[in-house]
Amino acid sequence: MSGHATNLRFKLPAICFLLQLFTIILFAVFVRYDQETSARLWHEELSHHNKSNRDNDFYFRYPSFQDVHTMIFIGFGFLMTFLKRYGFGSVAFNFLIAAFAIQWSTLIQGFFHSFHDGKIHIGIESMINADFCSGAVLISFGAVLGKTSPIQLLLMALFEVTLFGINEYVLLSLIGAKDAGGSMTIHTFGAYFGLMVSRVLYRPQLDKSRQREGSVYHSDLFAMIGTIYLWLFWPSFNSAITTHGDDQQRTVMNTYFSLAASTLATFGTSALINGEGKLDMVHIQNAALAGGVMVGTSGEMMLTPFGAMIAGFLAGLVSTLGFKFLTPILDSRLKIQDTCGVHNLHGMPGVLGALLGALVAALATQDVYGDGMADVFPFIADGSRTATYQGICQLFALLITLGFAVVGGSLVGAALKIRLLGSPPDTQCFDDQIYWEVPEDHQDGYMRAVNSEDPERSASV
Amino acid sequence: MSGHATNLRFKLPAICFLLQLFTIILFAVFVRYDQETSARLWHEELSHHNKSNRDNDFYFRYPSFQDVHTMIFIGFGFLMTFLKRYGFGSVAFNFLIAAFAIQWSTLIQGFFHSFHDGKIHIGIESMINADFCSGAVLISFGAVLGKTSPIQLLLMALFEVTLFGINEYVLLSLIGAKDAGGSMTIHTFGAYFGLMVSRVLYRPQLDKSRQREGSVYHSDLFAMIGTIYLWLFWPSFNSAITTHGDDQQRTVMNTYFSLAASTLATFGTSALINGEGKLDMVHIQNAALAGGVMVGTSGEMMLTPFGAMIAGFLAGLVSTLGFKFLTPILDSRLKIQDTCGVHNLHGMPGVLGALLGALVAALATQDVYGDGMADVFPFIADGSRTATYQGICQLFALLITLGFAVVGGSLVGAALKIRLLGSPPDTQCFDDQIYWEVPEDHQDGYMRAVNSEDPERSASV
Amino acid sequence: MSGHATNLRFKLPAICFLLQLFTIILFAVFVRYDQETSARLWHEELSHHNKSNRDNDFYFRYPSFQDVHTMIFIGFGFLMTFLKRYGFGSVAFNFLIAAFAIQWSTLIQGFFHSFHDGKIHIGIESMINADFCSGAVLISFGAVLGKTSPIQLLLMALFEVTLFGINEYVLLSLIGAKDAGGSMTIHTFGAYFGLMVSRVLYRPQLDKSRQREGSVYHSDLFAMIGTIYLWLFWPSFNSAITTHGDDQQRTVMNTYFSLAASTLATFGTSALINGEGKLDMVHIQNAALAGGVMVGTSGEMMLTPFGAMIAGFLAGLVSTLGFKFLTPILDSRLKIQDTCGVHNLHGMPGVLGALLGALVAALATQDVYGDGMADVFPFIADGSRTATYQGICQLFALLITLGFAVVGGSLVGAALKIRLLGSPPDTQCFDDQIYWEVPEDHQDGYMRAVNSEDPERSASV
Repeated sequence: MSGHATNLRFKLPAICFLLQLFTIILFAVFVRYDQETSARLWHEELSHHNKSNRDNDFYFRYPSFQDVHTMIFIGFGFLMTFLKRYGFGSVAFNFLIAAFAIQWSTLIQGFFHSFHDGKIHIGIESMINADFCSGAVLISFGAVLGKTSPIQLLLMALFEVTLFGINEYVLLSLIGAKDAGGSMTIHTFGAYFGLMVSRVLYRPQLDKSRQREGSVYHSDLFAMIGTIYLWLFWPSFNSAITTHGDDQQRTVMNTYFSLAASTLATFGTSALINGEGKLDMVHIQNAALAGGVMVGTSGEMMLTPFGAMIAGFLAGLVSTLGFKFLTPILDSRLKIQDTCGVHNLHGMPGVLGALLGALVAALATQDVYGDGMADVFPFIADGSRTATYQGICQLFALLITLGFAVVGGSLVGAALKIRLLGSPPDTQCFDDQIYWEVPEDHQDGYMRAVNSEDPERSASV
Repeated sequence: MSGHATNLRFKLPAICFLLQLFTIILFAVFVRYDQETSARLWHEELSHHNKSNRDNDFYFRYPSFQDVHTMIFIGFGFLMTFLKRYGFGSVAFNFLIAAFAIQWSTLIQGFFHSFHDGKIHIGIESMINADFCSGAVLISFGAVLGKTSPIQLLLMALFEVTLFGINEYVLLSLIGAKDAGGSMTIHTFGAYFGLMVSRVLYRPQLDKSRQREGSVYHSDLFAMIGTIYLWLFWPSFNSAITTHGDDQQRTVMNTYFSLAASTLATFGTSALINGEGKLDMVHIQNAALAGGVMVGTSGEMMLTPFGAMIAGFLAGLVSTLGFKFLTPILDSRLKIQDTCGVHNLHGMPGVLGALLGALVAALATQDVYGDGMADVFPFIADGSRTATYQGICQLFALLITLGFAVVGGSLVGAALKIRLLGSPPDTQCFDDQIYWEVPEDHQDGYMRAVNSEDPERSASV
Repeated sequence: MSGHATNLRFKLPAICFLLQLFTIILFAVFVRYDQETSARLWHEELSHHNKSNRDNDFYFRYPSFQDVHTMIFIGFGFLMTFLKRYGFGSVAFNFLIAAFAIQWSTLIQGFFHSFHDGKIHIGIESMINADFCSGAVLISFGAVLGKTSPIQLLLMALFEVTLFGINEYVLLSLIGAKDAGGSMTIHTFGAYFGLMVSRVLYRPQLDKSRQREGSVYHSDLFAMIGTIYLWLFWPSFNSAITTHGDDQQRTVMNTYFSLAASTLATFGTSALINGEGKLDMVHIQNAALAGGVMVGTSGEMMLTPFGAMIAGFLAGLVSTLGFKFLTPILDSRLKIQDTCGVHNLHGMPGVLGALLGALVAALATQDVYGDGMADVFPFIADGSRTATYQGICQLFALLITLGFAVVGGSLVGAALKIRLLGSPPDTQCFDDQIYWEVPEDHQDGYMRAVNSEDPERSASV
């Protein structure tokens, strides 16, 4: 174990304090309140532009922000507690890397999107975007869950946030693609980035830890807390930064129906592919959410409610099948060990969602969108693009995202191979004991009793 | 077990896929975005009616909607996880049937309330109402929890949502009753419907599964997640579709105080009726919520804060006493096996809430309501009804609801007796193992150890 | 045990019913809907003051209220479930005393802040303030957790809420101090009040219950639900009653960054002070929240984002160090047994937050605040105070708060020593069994198995 140098006594404080200090310095130099957050500037707005306090974007977006915030820290965090002996690491490393990522992405996204006169100006929208970006990092975390140290995770967040910002800038600002709910920027990017990191960090001897890769009864219930919150608030996620008015409400509604349909598809498919007709918690915890990923791009468009349902249904179906048939192949053939199955929940539904977005964009007509066209497709509204061309741009955006994710994930994975980053040995993956003070019942007692594959158990009984 | 045909391998996929497909087709034919969700229509509103985006109902109701949504999926779902071996079924079947019910009720309620020119128009208010309707189904689910297959539950949802829609239409549109928080339409209807289903599905041999009907220590904590969320967000539930302005705020406040008082009543009563003065988690988990049910009808009225407290106090008292004294009688005398005690939480408080609503309506005066009368009692405001007559209408609405629930529940219960619907045998009720892949600790190990009444245990120890 | 008279059969009902009855009578006499909650008064506002429904404060504050509400009942409640055998008492006594405190504080705060023409007028802001006040009581609860009966807790709430109201009135109305997020009024007051109660109730023989003072694996996960919700919604807490517009948004943003920085500080420090470099769940569950306490006073001011980060970083650092080095000293030297470590999470960060608030107030300039000065520092804006003098007032407010807390806590602690209040004996602290019907697995079975220090275990194995 000493070869792996998993003692974090000095390394973890060093990286936490350095990253935080560095961030604080950059904030001090570059980051300022925007015109809605600054006492002086907002009151100038009020008096010069005949605004009232209720025009402050806070009242349009704060409820959505808090839903997104809950998804990031409760949703992702508890979804990953399904592992029987890795609950602390799941929810708490999720907490740590998201807490760093929201700060770092405020800087990165700020440089690209709200850098004026040498300063980054921030407000409620930058907070939502920072949470979005940390979502991508947490998706990647799902692919490497249990096999990485918190130091590796913080470094992954540092690099991934940076690349996320570049990719997002290319997509939204250079290509003019639409992706309000992040089928491409968040889900596709986060999933394939994480899968490539996992590929580079492939552990041929991971079988030594397999007996800890499952769940216990109550860890599956903790995971359902994460699942249900993600499911509930996904409509807020997809709509959080769409235009005020019909756009926000329509995005909510499309996502709501897509998720409902993906839930029925998941239950049906889960029973179908199990030899005894029994349902599998892994599918319910994950694939039922695929409907939210699926309409991440198209949710703000005039998708129609039944269109959203068809999309969600397909996503739930494909995602469940992926867990059954694709995950084992990824592991055995492609050497990609995907702990949480992010390829099924975020990868495939993200790509399908991007394709659906391209299709719906290409079908946009003035008759359907009316004066609302300018909010959804400004380039079509101002005549600088045809709907077909917008659709092609969307496809192009998907390809670029895949490129950034695959190349970036490979490079970052290589960087994380450095030995002194505290990665756990193959025999101690998926186990909190390596990084945490754990209560006695985790070390022995009932945890051993419930794990019948644990070799020590046979000896002791 | 084969006689019960509990293998769902083809049945569950068949019903999930058929119901979803059928729903999608009906949505494609009938359902359209309303004027606040459609890009074209909303922008016509903006330009023709001098509105601004902040007039979109989304900003008045979306936070309440998300609270209601949380109650339906987290609140009801986790409240039912108190059973030691039925946590998966509780939270996940809750998830499944609610995901179907919100779609189906969008159609049913749409036909009755927003069907114009051959189309149903939907927006944020229809989403809230769909969640409300699924709440009634989940209340019924509580009465039959652990004793029904997911197929039976989906069929129950299909029929119950339909009847709910008819009953709601009769109450609100034909009789002109007020019931914003659903003391009648949701709680009374859902409870007595479910109790009748349970009566028809009576299992004389249920004692064979009684040893699994209790809780373990941590399952009671999971249930408290559900309880607290229901308690927290009940003010949002009762106010979600009341008129903008004072109505929403007043409903929130009345519900807040009613719930607080029912909590103190529950703790006091729970200690009082226990021989040793100990508190009972079943009471805390359920009866503390009765205050929310109790003001479901009257919450939007000028109930006064102390009136709300008296109402809540009585509800908590009656509900706790019901768990102690009435539930055993329902079981032994009336052959109604009410797993979650929905008669105590939703049945009696629902009826009392309806009576309270009739009383408060009959006492309405112009002096107290002023120009706000039109929002709360439009028929009194326009002179077409006296307050007394409104009160009588409220009473009449209660009777109709009870009739629909009892007759409907009996008929649907009879339909669910069909053998091939996969109902569990008497020896395997309250056990996830029959429908779920369960981790090993559920099958043996500590679960057996913690269940001292399990006959196998004595043998193995 | 009979000497301790822990049987609550008549005592708990008596106090619950009496307190509730007394509260209802006072509400009936004094409490009325305010002009935004009353049907008549709000409609007079609408017609006489040219307002629209969207001006109702409900739409500015209800989402924040619900976040605060969640913190009080889920956040505090589950945070304290970390104890292995006291989960019921943690979440449910939290529920009970908060349900009483919000009613009682509506009266107390109402007499001081909204008493006109002999009546207290209440609305959404009074609900937020009532929840705030109950937060202080729950902080004190954390100091005495597991060592007090529900009767003692209700009496503590009765007295503490009253003192809270007086202290708050002195600070905000007489001294004109600013404390929107309650670094002083809530955190400093609640912590030192509770610590003094714990000091007076010192148990020299508490070692007899020490083996139950730890956690088990899943109880730590339940506690993380509380932690994460507190962390997520702290921005809403600090901003819930600040002025509309920039103030609310700025407070949210400052709190968001402070919390993020305190999280990194906590992880780093936790690893650093552990001999083996392992992380400690106690630190993560608590110290990561210190950033929210720290900016309770200064959050609404022009603290700057990087200032918020520095503040949060220091708070996380100090709080974590406190758990390691100060808590043992408080216990051994000062005879203060602080079950949850509230001195580290609320006490020190509260005092530091008050000092920071004084500093930032003293640095306020017209150039930075512009016309927004009147919202944040009305006395500076109207020329009746200099910034320096405002800062001095803030310091003075801290001293008064400490005085009220220390003297009040001592007196209340003395009152709670009365023997018939049902306090648990030293051998049965931190155990639900004394006040609760518990499932069998709590009484024996795996709970015994997981507690290797339990003396009975050695005997039985």
